[in-house]
Amino acid sequence: APLLQDEACPLGCARVQLGLRYQDQRFTVTVLQLDNCSALCLPEEHNMYVRVVVLPCSENARCLFRTRSYPPQATLEVNEVFGLAVSHNALRQKTLRVDLCYTGRWGRETCLAGAQVSLAEERCGDEQSSRWFNLLSLVDVTE
Amino acid sequence: APLLQDEACPLGCARVQLGLRYQDQRFTVTVLQLDNCSALCLPEEHNMYVRVVVLPCSENARCLFRTRSYPPQATLEVNEVFGLAVSHNALRQKTLRVDLCYTGRWGRETCLAGAQVSLAEERCGDEQSSRWFNLLSLVDVTE
Repeated sequence: APLLQDEACPLGCARVQLGLRYQDQRFTVTVLQLDNCSALCLPEEHNMYVRVVVLPCSENARCLFRTRSYPPQATLEVNEVFGLAVSHNALRQKTLRVDLCYTGRWGRETCLAGAQVSLAEERCGDEQSSRWFNLLSLVDVTE
Repeated sequence: APLLQDEACPLGCARVQLGLRYQDQRFTVTVLQLDNCSALCLPEEHNMYVRVVVLPCSENARCLFRTRSYPPQATLEVNEVFGLAVSHNALRQKTLRVDLCYTGRWGRETCLAGAQVSLAEERCGDEQSSRWFNLLSLVDVTE
């Protein structure tokens, strides 16, 4: 059988590089950089940013973070760090959700694509581990 | 500062164990087992199943699979294997989406919770790697 070519994703996929670390009862997520965002339909007239959520949210801690906003561009160095205090046992029941978003008309947050990382067995220790994650277009997910 | 307890998830989270393998230009996903599904609101009157999607879909290959249906229960051995032919380069641009679903009224598919796995840097080689992934309730995601 012929191998599949990459018809569905001719431009490749947008990706985000994250650094994950768990140290001293604190989980930190570093949004390092974005790559190949031109594979998404970035709205030219709106700035884009990355939204980070650690789910399910605990009632007594912040779980939602947003980077600064940047003009739409294909690649971007972000280097912003977000952290929350969480026990290791609770962390292993969380899922990290990272979305590329913009603020549209009337201040409405619109997300274009995202990655989701189960922390059940994710190796994140004292040393920051950096990895690339594909950003799946939310159009593909809801179809 | 006091550590967070796990208020948001008092029963823990539902989880799925997957086996991922890439061999001979073929990607296979084994749905091994489900655990702690009582953390979700399983509808008593409907059977549940696992839906596996490799996204974005390529036009000339199947990308959507469903396991058999099972009566709602907290833990379940599934052991069903799904595979598709895909080049390694294309695979690295895909995202695996795994959802726990049931067929509701009028045959409508309803998904309760899911995991998403970026295959950009996922280590899956000749040997099957088995890992647990948290199933994030879709209620949490869309809030």
